Amino acid sequence: MNKAKIDTVLMSHGSGGTLMKRLIEELFYEEYGSKPLLQGDDAADLSCEEMQQDPGSRLAFSTDTFVVTPHFFPGGDIGRLAICGTVNDVATSGAKVRYLSCGFVLEEGFLMDDLKRICHSMAQAAQEADVQIVTGDTKVVDRGHGDGIFINTSGVGLIPAGRRLGGALCQPGDKILLSGTIGDHGIAIISTREGLSFSTTIESDAAPLNHLISAVLEVAPQTRCFRDPTRGGLSSTLNELALQSNTVMTINEESVPVNDQVNGACEMLGYDVFQVANEGKIVCVVAAQEAEAALNAMRCSKYGENAAIIGEVTSVQAQDGGPKVYLATTFGSRRILDMLVGEQLPRIC
Amino acid sequence: MNKAKIDTVLMSHGSGGTLMKRLIEELFYEEYGSKPLLQGDDAADLSCEEMQQDPGSRLAFSTDTFVVTPHFFPGGDIGRLAICGTVNDVATSGAKVRYLSCGFVLEEGFLMDDLKRICHSMAQAAQEADVQIVTGDTKVVDRGHGDGIFINTSGVGLIPAGRRLGGALCQPGDKILLSGTIGDHGIAIISTREGLSFSTTIESDAAPLNHLISAVLEVAPQTRCFRDPTRGGLSSTLNELALQSNTVMTINEESVPVNDQVNGACEMLGYDVFQVANEGKIVCVVAAQEAEAALNAMRCSKYGENAAIIGEVTSVQAQDGGPKVYLATTFGSRRILDMLVGEQLPRIC
Repeated sequence: MNKAKIDTVLMSHGSGGTLMKRLIEELFYEEYGSKPLLQGDDAADLSCEEMQQDPGSRLAFSTDTFVVTPHFFPGGDIGRLAICGTVNDVATSGAKVRYLSCGFVLEEGFLMDDLKRICHSMAQAAQEADVQIVTGDTKVVDRGHGDGIFINTSGVGLIPAGRRLGGALCQPGDKILLSGTIGDHGIAIISTREGLSFSTTIESDAAPLNHLISAVLEVAPQTRCFRDPTRGGLSSTLNELALQSNTVMTINEESVPVNDQVNGACEMLGYDVFQVANEGKIVCVVAAQEAEAALNAMRCSKYGENAAIIGEVTSVQAQDGGPKVYLATTFGSRRILDMLVGEQLPRIC
Repeated sequence: MNKAKIDTVLMSHGSGGTLMKRLIEELFYEEYGSKPLLQGDDAADLSCEEMQQDPGSRLAFSTDTFVVTPHFFPGGDIGRLAICGTVNDVATSGAKVRYLSCGFVLEEGFLMDDLKRICHSMAQAAQEADVQIVTGDTKVVDRGHGDGIFINTSGVGLIPAGRRLGGALCQPGDKILLSGTIGDHGIAIISTREGLSFSTTIESDAAPLNHLISAVLEVAPQTRCFRDPTRGGLSSTLNELALQSNTVMTINEESVPVNDQVNGACEMLGYDVFQVANEGKIVCVVAAQEAEAALNAMRCSKYGENAAIIGEVTSVQAQDGGPKVYLATTFGSRRILDMLVGEQLPRIC
C-alpha cells in the first residue's frame, strides 16, 4: 500500500489492518494522542491515585452517541459536541472528569478533510475541559448505511468522598438555577439545516461545563443535582427531576433567559423554546440558603454570565395530582410544562 | 400518547421525551436494570471499594462500536457480540471487568421485536461475564441513514496493584498461546450473509473470556499480554504485538487449531484463515516457564478446551529487517504472516 493521499474514508479504514493503523497514527494520535492512547493496547491502563488518596470516593461513568446533522454548524461541530456532551454528563455527578473514550462509525466516502476538522475540534474541546481521550475504536460502514459520521464518547470521572448528587435529592424549598439562555443549540441546528435566513447570528452553545459545575460545588455544597437540558429541552429535564424527587417545580417565565432571536425563531417555526435542546447549559437545584452563592459562581464562570434563579421546588399537593412542572407565565397565569411528546427536532445531538 | 403496542422504532424514541422514557423503562430496565442504571441520572455513580482497598490498583477503560451485519447469526447476535467484545478488551489488561455502558444508534423502522431479542441477549452475556450495564444512551436516525442498529459499549475494570500487561512487554524466549480454533466468527458471518450452504454448522465463537483470562493470570503471573484477534485476525494481532515489543514471532502452522469446516470454507472462498476475525479467542504471550501452566488453565476453562501453544518470541535478527511474524508451515517452509492490507470481510463486528 503506497502512502498516496487518500481523500475519503474507505472500507479498509475499518479493517483492523494497515490502513486503519495509518489512520489512527497519522490522525488520531496526532490530534489527541494521550499517553494511555499511544500505548496502543486494547484497554487503557489508567492510574487513579487521587481516588486511593480519598477513601470513599467513587467513580462516575456516562456515555453518549452523537448523530447530529449537519456535522458543522454555527458555534461548533459534531466533534466539539461529542466531547462537551459527555464531559457535561459525567460532571453532573459532581465528579472531576478525567478520561474519555471515542468510538467512530464512519460511512465509506466521508471526506477525510471533514474527519480531520472534527478530530481537531475534539482535541480543542478536550483541552478546554482538561480531559484526556485515552481509548478509541473506529468502524466503517458501507455507503448508504450510515450518515457520514457518528461519534460515541464515554467518560469516567472521580466523585470525591461524601459528595452525593442526584435528581432524587431535590427537596421542597430548594431553588432552581439555570446557567444561561435556552434554545440556542436547537435553533442554530435547525436554521442551518433548513437554510433559514436568521441563521447567521444564532450560534450553538456547545461548551464543556465541568469547570462551572466545580465552581458551584465549591460554594454550594448543598447542591442537590445538576442536569443538562439537551434533548427534550428544559421542560423534559425538569419533569425528570420532579418525577425522580416526587416534587412540584414552578418556573417563572420571566426569569428564564432566552435570546430575542431564539424567541423570534421559535415563534416563527412554532417551537416551544422550553422543549428545544441545549448543549452548553446546566440546570442546578440547590438548597435555598446557598442559591445566591451558586448563582454568583455561575455568573463568574466563562459559560454562565446569563445565569439566573428560575424557580423553586415545592411539595406535591392534592390538586397537583402528582409530580409536576408549572410555568408561571409573564401574563400572571400558570400552565403545565410537559415532557416532550413525540419528536420536535430530530438528530439535534 | 396511548400505550398501544408500537412495532417499530420511531424517531420519537430518540427525542428525550415520553416515548424514549417508555423504551428505557419497559425494555432496557426490564432486561438489564442494574442499580446504578435504575437511578436514572446522567452519569452512573459507582462505588469502587475494591480499588481503595488495593493501593496501587488502576483503572482499565476500553470502547468498541458494533456494526456487524447480519444482526443475528449462528452462535450469537450483535447484542452478545457488543457485550463480549468490550468485556474481552477490558479483560486483556488483566482487569476485573466491572461496569459497561451501552449506546444504541437505532434506525427508524427497526423492528421492536429484534431490539428486544438483542437486549435479552445482552443481558444474558452480561450475566455470564458477571458485569453490570450501568449507563446508557439511545439515538434514533431517520430511515436510510443507519443500518438497523449499531451498538457502542464501553467498559471499566480494576487492575490489581502490581499487575502490568501490554504488547510492549513481550520478550525473546516467551511462548505464544491461543485459546482455541480461529476463523469461526468470520466464516459464520460471511456464510450467513451470503447464504452459503455450509453455513449450518459453523457458529460464531462470540464469548466473554474474562474468566479464562483470570484463570491464566492466577497460575501464570509472568504473562506479558493478552490480545483478542478480532478484525484482521491472528495475523494482524501478532503483527501488532511484534511491532509493540520489537520482536520476531514465529508460529507453527500445525499447532494452530482450525475447524475443518472453517478451513474448507476459507479455501473455497479464498480467505486466509489467519486474517479472519474471531470474537471468542485470545492470544496470550507468557514467560516460557509458565506456558504449560497457562495452557492448562485455558484448557480447563469453558471457552479454552482447544487451547494450544502456537509459537514463540525471538529477537530481531539482521535478516529479519525489523519486527516480523513468520509462519512455519506444515510443509516445512516459512512464510511471512502480514498484517491485513485492504479489507477482507467488512462489518464483521
